[in-house]
Amino acid sequence: MNVTVGGHTRPYRTVTFDARLNAVRLIEQRRLPHEFQIVATRDFRETAAAIRDMIVRGAGAIGATAAYGLAQGARAFRGGGRSKFSAHVETVYQTLKGARPTAVDPVNAMNDVLRLMARGETVAEQQALALAAAEEFANEDARHCRAIGEHGAKLIRDGMSVLTHCNAGWLAFVDVGSATAPLYAAQARGRKLHVFCDETRPRSQGATLTAWELAQQKVSHQIIADNAAGHLMQRGEIDLVIVGSDRTLGRTGEVANKIGTYTKAVLAKRHGIPFYVAIPLSTIDWNLKSGFDIPIEERHEHEVLGAWGVLETRNSELRTRNGKRAYVRVANPTSGARNPGFDVTPAELITGIITPVGIFKPRELWRHRRELGFTH
Amino acid sequence: MNVTVGGHTRPYRTVTFDARLNAVRLIEQRRLPHEFQIVATRDFRETAAAIRDMIVRGAGAIGATAAYGLAQGARAFRGGGRSKFSAHVETVYQTLKGARPTAVDPVNAMNDVLRLMARGETVAEQQALALAAAEEFANEDARHCRAIGEHGAKLIRDGMSVLTHCNAGWLAFVDVGSATAPLYAAQARGRKLHVFCDETRPRSQGATLTAWELAQQKVSHQIIADNAAGHLMQRGEIDLVIVGSDRTLGRTGEVANKIGTYTKAVLAKRHGIPFYVAIPLSTIDWNLKSGFDIPIEERHEHEVLGAWGVLETRNSELRTRNGKRAYVRVANPTSGARNPGFDVTPAELITGIITPVGIFKPRELWRHRRELGFTH
Repeated sequence: MNVTVGGHTRPYRTVTFDARLNAVRLIEQRRLPHEFQIVATRDFRETAAAIRDMIVRGAGAIGATAAYGLAQGARAFRGGGRSKFSAHVETVYQTLKGARPTAVDPVNAMNDVLRLMARGETVAEQQALALAAAEEFANEDARHCRAIGEHGAKLIRDGMSVLTHCNAGWLAFVDVGSATAPLYAAQARGRKLHVFCDETRPRSQGATLTAWELAQQKVSHQIIADNAAGHLMQRGEIDLVIVGSDRTLGRTGEVANKIGTYTKAVLAKRHGIPFYVAIPLSTIDWNLKSGFDIPIEERHEHEVLGAWGVLETRNSELRTRNGKRAYVRVANPTSGARNPGFDVTPAELITGIITPVGIFKPRELWRHRRELGFTH
Repeated sequence: MNVTVGGHTRPYRTVTFDARLNAVRLIEQRRLPHEFQIVATRDFRETAAAIRDMIVRGAGAIGATAAYGLAQGARAFRGGGRSKFSAHVETVYQTLKGARPTAVDPVNAMNDVLRLMARGETVAEQQALALAAAEEFANEDARHCRAIGEHGAKLIRDGMSVLTHCNAGWLAFVDVGSATAPLYAAQARGRKLHVFCDETRPRSQGATLTAWELAQQKVSHQIIADNAAGHLMQRGEIDLVIVGSDRTLGRTGEVANKIGTYTKAVLAKRHGIPFYVAIPLSTIDWNLKSGFDIPIEERHEHEVLGAWGVLETRNSELRTRNGKRAYVRVANPTSGARNPGFDVTPAELITGIITPVGIFKPRELWRHRRELGFTH
């Protein structure tokens, strides 16, 4: 998507590969929205560190980063022979996998790369195939997001206001994003729209990443406290809700997503506002039989007890380098917090699931499982 | 209520009067929860400034502060005669009224004081009556809150978890509070309870003031992001919701309160969790015929775009005096915000209204209007 830096606007992807330098190029997401910076990792260990340290986050984005990292590692191999090469590739694979042990996307992406590599005879052929496979993974991720946009754009009529939660934008993928894709596609069709971004406490990805994305694409938007959506719905100011998903149960249509998603779905239902979930096929879990079996991560309480941001003060006692992020403790210092990271929204609250192959009722995913990539 | 400072625990009221010094003593609420400080205002202009500058906030607390401020001003009068005294009192009245022009509580409180003062013959008698009337106003505020606690405590069974939103605690009144009163009363009866405090973005009064109050009274509690209540309800972790109210419509039972209250009511309804509103009689509006006629204040967007707190950092570039509050910009710097301050909860979502004279169904307020102090 377009990014304007120093007055110049040009398209970027979240993750790309520089074949000449054998480097993975990433948007440094921890500095957004206060600073835009591209970092290049020069070997697979640096790439693994970038995943581990959250320079890059989001399902599609870390999948592509791992795929490129595997190609990067394979291409760095010198001398040896096929068996030494295989052992080296295994080391690369395990290193990248270990960077985010609970994530499924890096593993799926790397398995794709390994499958294509296996068609090569020589080390050189396998190295070339690894890069081709990684590029194809990244391109497919972007194509799928664009397809989500094509389907989702049909839901957005001229003049609509759309509520989003958290960030399932292009920064979480290679390009375009999932929940944001319909917004960008509708704008490209010349439709006027306004987006309300839930700030999405406690990590504020709506206020930081989604708002930054929308500002870069010049989509009209305003940030709201998570408390405000109910009031805006009550006053008729929200026409449509689109969110992303961390895991979608193919058997039940339940959706696990960032904490607060369930609340917005309950509010949308009460007000008769359509509530859509935009997903790439990779987030569908065809095994689990109940949303209550999804483990809900309890995150560190300091996220709830304070906030990260850039200091703004005229007080000379407070000094900071420009753009340096600081943490402030907001809460009472002798109080603790609960911090569940995700919640589960039942199918009955979801109007439809927007996928790269079309829009489905949540309870119809299982019936369409072949079309949706379920191969077992 | 009790406050522990430097290892010593002793009871405080939010607002008291020092007759010897003719000073109003206030808890400096802008420094909480990071610092506990009592300030004394030495004349009525300082008292008006304390109301205007939010050293003191909350309906009951600013009512009592204005009542004491009027007595303070009257008592400072020297020489003259009755007509000069009356002109002086009028100046005091207008100065205090102008400190928070939209608030009804200071005006009602001062009218009470004026009514009693009028019974005095001499200036000296009127000065003495002014202080007696202000003390009576403050004592009645505390008595009413204790009565809310007595009625509300019946709703809290041993082992319950209670959700609160924002701060309708003793800091908003002279003592005890409205939404917190049942919690303190239940604890005094030896019942075990746990409180989840919504942090209540964007101003975080739940994370700061309510959490501080509960910690001081040693009530078990945890702060949660406003996004988390839906998930906790879904998992059966919340048994009861008690909130306060800025304005309650006596004719319809609708409740205007801090933004996000409506959302919690919708969630509670879905989960069959009782949702109560605790109010002093002064917040009942007997005139308005619809909640949609309540003007919803749109507050400054910087509240949503960032957060106030105390810097916590090991970074030597960031230096601050201990406990000094700083503002951090969290959001994308090129994005704006919407910031409605309040929302309206319809009667159908409210299980009951806890008042000093008993608990009523929201739609039964009008029928009980005499009992509830409606005198016209």
